[in-house]
Amino acid sequence: MPHFKIVLAYDGTDYIGWQRQASGTSIQGLVEDALRELDGRDVSVAGAGRTDAGVHALGQVASFSLERTIEPVTVLRSLNAKLPPDIRVRTAEAVPPGFHARFDARAKTYRYRIWNGEVLNPFERRYVWHIVGPLDIEAMAAAARVLEGTHDFAAFQGTGSDAATTVRTITQSTLQSTIHDPQSAMAMVEFTITGDGFLRHMVRAIVGSLVEIGRGRQAASWLGEVLASRRRERAGQTAPPHGLALVAVDFGSALAAEP
Amino acid sequence: MPHFKIVLAYDGTDYIGWQRQASGTSIQGLVEDALRELDGRDVSVAGAGRTDAGVHALGQVASFSLERTIEPVTVLRSLNAKLPPDIRVRTAEAVPPGFHARFDARAKTYRYRIWNGEVLNPFERRYVWHIVGPLDIEAMAAAARVLEGTHDFAAFQGTGSDAATTVRTITQSTLQSTIHDPQSAMAMVEFTITGDGFLRHMVRAIVGSLVEIGRGRQAASWLGEVLASRRRERAGQTAPPHGLALVAVDFGSALAAEP
Repeated sequence: MPHFKIVLAYDGTDYIGWQRQASGTSIQGLVEDALRELDGRDVSVAGAGRTDAGVHALGQVASFSLERTIEPVTVLRSLNAKLPPDIRVRTAEAVPPGFHARFDARAKTYRYRIWNGEVLNPFERRYVWHIVGPLDIEAMAAAARVLEGTHDFAAFQGTGSDAATTVRTITQSTLQSTIHDPQSAMAMVEFTITGDGFLRHMVRAIVGSLVEIGRGRQAASWLGEVLASRRRERAGQTAPPHGLALVAVDFGSALAAEP
Repeated sequence: MPHFKIVLAYDGTDYIGWQRQASGTSIQGLVEDALRELDGRDVSVAGAGRTDAGVHALGQVASFSLERTIEPVTVLRSLNAKLPPDIRVRTAEAVPPGFHARFDARAKTYRYRIWNGEVLNPFERRYVWHIVGPLDIEAMAAAARVLEGTHDFAAFQGTGSDAATTVRTITQSTLQSTIHDPQSAMAMVEFTITGDGFLRHMVRAIVGSLVEIGRGRQAASWLGEVLASRRRERAGQTAPPHGLALVAVDFGSALAAEP
């Protein structure tokens, strides 16, 4: 059976998230529906990251098998012809049968963007968290680095999670202000985090906590204390979903090593 | 009467255009409705450029008078509180009573963007014209420069226009490919045009003609022939509205010169 890896970008605004659920429209569900039409049977699609409702993706990765013998470029074109324009398959390639987008993912990178300024750019309104008051970017950036390394992230896990362990390894956790207009005091604040896995709502709970620091309600050192406490009630509120995007999934040599 | 100049950004997707019309929702209409609430009487708003249905603005400029004495920052905040999130007032300032956003505009800059590649970035789907096949960017760029100078643009005027003269002076007409991914042959093509005025559908008729050249159906020299012909049926089709944005309006020293 031909096996495929696809890379997807999607605007998550109108979806209940990646994962198919009993009700509502999911990205996984739409991809599976499109593949059923293509392959003439039910197709199960595995996604690297379970993005929540309203969360976007620039580089989500999914894997599946088809019974029909079909070229990757035909998979790409057929899917894009059937999917709505806010979900696009960027690339499609044939991969060894053992490849699994979730189990073989070595690292995922998420990005969270905050528009810090009085007037929100209307073209960014679906893709950023709008915060009006001043943010201490230096303190937020210093705090963000504390998360790098292998830690128990229980303090940043949302309720209703079934993760076997709350220990994760974060290889990058950086925050910077990417645009800055001194006249209007406007800035795009971008938080980037790469790790071997993420707990439910983890990135958004981290961002909510970083904003507590940015607003001056907590010192930069507080984030390390929250992390060490392993208690969710110590962390900040969960940041809204629409500022978050799954940027990329890294498979290391997993693909090359497959027979 | 206090007189104001505001700079607006808007996502034109859901509107019939800047200008208030008998039916449909216009940006001018929404701004006037919001100002009526603020000032307690009908307020007439003049816009620098009449953007068509589906056309966006990064820097539309409008002017109006109020009876109430009110700070510009209050005008800005009140308007943004009343307007939908896809229309934002970026700045507001008090100006001399004679200032008129349309009559005093010395130059306007429009930008038209084309996504040239097989897979359209879903986040750009409302803001670019998607063209899949190859485009000869060099030929398009060479043709674009021909428009610079003072010319009769009758060949690029849409039907139903009431312009007294079709002569306009274009100070910049440039086209470039701003992103390029050799692997996927994807490019964002950006056409920028600055002039003292624009006829109805002029920028979109120019872009439609440039695309004829880009697709190899016409030589780069053809654009100058179309211009010289002054006949609309010689030009290419009108490009779709959603790739177009009014970027900025320049008032030269008009504001400074007012008493």
